[in-house]
Amino acid sequence: MEILSQIRSLKPLVHCITNYVTANDVANALISLGASPVMADDEREVEEMVCMSNALVINIGTLNERTITSMIKAGKKANGLNIPVVLDPVGAGATTFRTQTALKLIENIKFSIIRGNASEISALVGDDINKSRGVDVNSKSAELGVEEMVKRASVLWKLSKSVVVVSGRIDIVLEGNNVAVGENGHEIMTKVTGSGCMLSAVLAAFAASEEDIFQAALYGVLAFGICGEMAMDLMSDRDANASYRNYLINELSNIDDSTIELRKMVRSNLEK
Amino acid sequence: MEILSQIRSLKPLVHCITNYVTANDVANALISLGASPVMADDEREVEEMVCMSNALVINIGTLNERTITSMIKAGKKANGLNIPVVLDPVGAGATTFRTQTALKLIENIKFSIIRGNASEISALVGDDINKSRGVDVNSKSAELGVEEMVKRASVLWKLSKSVVVVSGRIDIVLEGNNVAVGENGHEIMTKVTGSGCMLSAVLAAFAASEEDIFQAALYGVLAFGICGEMAMDLMSDRDANASYRNYLINELSNIDDSTIELRKMVRSNLEK
Amino acid sequence: MEILSQIRSLKPLVHCITNYVTANDVANALISLGASPVMADDEREVEEMVCMSNALVINIGTLNERTITSMIKAGKKANGLNIPVVLDPVGAGATTFRTQTALKLIENIKFSIIRGNASEISALVGDDINKSRGVDVNSKSAELGVEEMVKRASVLWKLSKSVVVVSGRIDIVLEGNNVAVGENGHEIMTKVTGSGCMLSAVLAAFAASEEDIFQAALYGVLAFGICGEMAMDLMSDRDANASYRNYLINELSNIDDSTIELRKMVRSNLEK
Repeated sequence: MEILSQIRSLKPLVHCITNYVTANDVANALISLGASPVMADDEREVEEMVCMSNALVINIGTLNERTITSMIKAGKKANGLNIPVVLDPVGAGATTFRTQTALKLIENIKFSIIRGNASEISALVGDDINKSRGVDVNSKSAELGVEEMVKRASVLWKLSKSVVVVSGRIDIVLEGNNVAVGENGHEIMTKVTGSGCMLSAVLAAFAASEEDIFQAALYGVLAFGICGEMAMDLMSDRDANASYRNYLINELSNIDDSTIELRKMVRSNLEK
Repeated sequence: MEILSQIRSLKPLVHCITNYVTANDVANALISLGASPVMADDEREVEEMVCMSNALVINIGTLNERTITSMIKAGKKANGLNIPVVLDPVGAGATTFRTQTALKLIENIKFSIIRGNASEISALVGDDINKSRGVDVNSKSAELGVEEMVKRASVLWKLSKSVVVVSGRIDIVLEGNNVAVGENGHEIMTKVTGSGCMLSAVLAAFAASEEDIFQAALYGVLAFGICGEMAMDLMSDRDANASYRNYLINELSNIDDSTIELRKMVRSNLEK
Repeated sequence: MEILSQIRSLKPLVHCITNYVTANDVANALISLGASPVMADDEREVEEMVCMSNALVINIGTLNERTITSMIKAGKKANGLNIPVVLDPVGAGATTFRTQTALKLIENIKFSIIRGNASEISALVGDDINKSRGVDVNSKSAELGVEEMVKRASVLWKLSKSVVVVSGRIDIVLEGNNVAVGENGHEIMTKVTGSGCMLSAVLAAFAASEEDIFQAALYGVLAFGICGEMAMDLMSDRDANASYRNYLINELSNIDDSTIELRKMVRSNLEK
């Protein structure tokens, strides 16, 4: 795969309707990777913005009624134009409002990729017996085995026909019967607010640059995880999450396709 | 006191209704400290989010009518559940809208802690003869002596029955007749946007982890000030506020209870 | 010129009605420079906030109907008080909504300075034959020669009577028949989200500290570009845009008037 080269040659414009907590990091992550971000969430401009974009990310962190309208308009427009759309259901399971909004979006928009953590994906398939712990971690659902999470991802695929990415200690990428499990990344990534939001936006840039969305999602996940490992190498004694955030975003500039081939740790039922 | 250990073992979820300028730093500061942040401000979800949280922070930076409704709903819910609530009256005194909103919140919600700078606290007790200079500094009120600020904090305590924290070159923590004065910290902290917002969120994590709110507030203030000093040690020639921000957030990971005991500079009328 | 010294002695309060993507960087950039930021966008407080400010920045990134009302109120108030107002027409040309909002603002408010990239400035004068590529770069309009951009800036000056700043590889500052062309800066500045927003806010601080707005704008542009060069000197092998952002903001603390005199690269038709 040469998707990173393709991203850097295409420089996809990624339209983000996203939250105000991590919007800055998302924008810098996209630029570092070689893509171009644009943030716009007013209903009077999102459709026009979609028309000039190569991908759309809908992230429900800090959502409100005004932005939900914009999300649906933008998503439908993107669908009409065959522009890939990524959903990040931040905090689904934490509140009814978020779970229902995520489901409403899935009902109205065909997403190319849905990326969440174990808790968020579980909530979308009605298995949120454990209420999400904040927006990052659900210790109980994090303990669910890979097999159980594959099952839930599969249910979400049937519901949405979207490539489903469950990110965590182990990353799962699923589309129908195709399943890949990646093991790149580092635990400290969960200590940076917005690492999930950045990954979703990165996946949008990958989806804009490679027609096979399953492969795009898989390579995006592996690339981001490897950046996380490379960033870890730079940490000194007194560094913690604030420094790590910068290293992580920087590494999106430094990674290339051959690094992915060299460092990827992945098992897939597509391999012979 | 072993509050930092308690925070790291409890990992309190801190629900923040806060401004878009510093939300990212607040989130990373909480994670660095060992807590878990969640930002949500839509009125249809704040009560549910409060139910799963261990503390609530209400910060009136960049507030608007929509978020005020959410603040009041969330605060009342938290009161009903006995979850500690911290108020950060950003910019009170700068505009009538902010002063009156802060007072309206105090009227409707029982806050565990109210933290502001000298100018903001003065505005809440009607002594804003000096209009706030921006949201950070009021040179005139900053020059007010400790005695005068203790007096104002005392008036606010009578009004609100909240532990009052006045942060500045000298930090004051007051509850009824209990008064402590801390001298940790460094002047450069005022050069980082959001250092006050981060402190308020840090105090919420402390309040979630220690029942004695006066002690929680005092240790939180000392801990944050000491982190500020530790961060200063890392500054090199060309560094300024952008680097310092990262060092400061990092140090919230590095500090522990014994460091606080060792470095705290505090006088209190509780000590014998 | 001694504008930097003036800024540091006046410490101008710069009121920003700006976007949530880069608000934090804008605030830290202003503080680093020696100014003081305040972000407030509710229509019930912006006029009062303007009254205590030394300059106002209106930035249309992530704008919506609510904030447009606030922008107009704040701008008119600032005009009445003779407080300099800077417009950053982020993304003008990308959507009709942004172009028309920028024009509506220009119709209702007398701006001291309008700063945009080649694509945004072109859109405001109806020459947006090339639709903006995101909010940062329009490769086609970026290729327009200096002469062509001077022509467009001149049209915008006639329309607005504002000093027009077109920033890019070459920076143009124009007021009537006065034109200056600056060549400081570094290409990597376009790889940091918010470098344009920071520049606009920096220009507001300069305009608050020097009555000759053309000179203020020119020196602000040169200062910011030189900071960009100084920041570049600090980059190590693995650094990319995330680190660079910090270096750039830091350097706004380190630059002084003599550095500007020493390093400025500028041609102007005012020089003999």
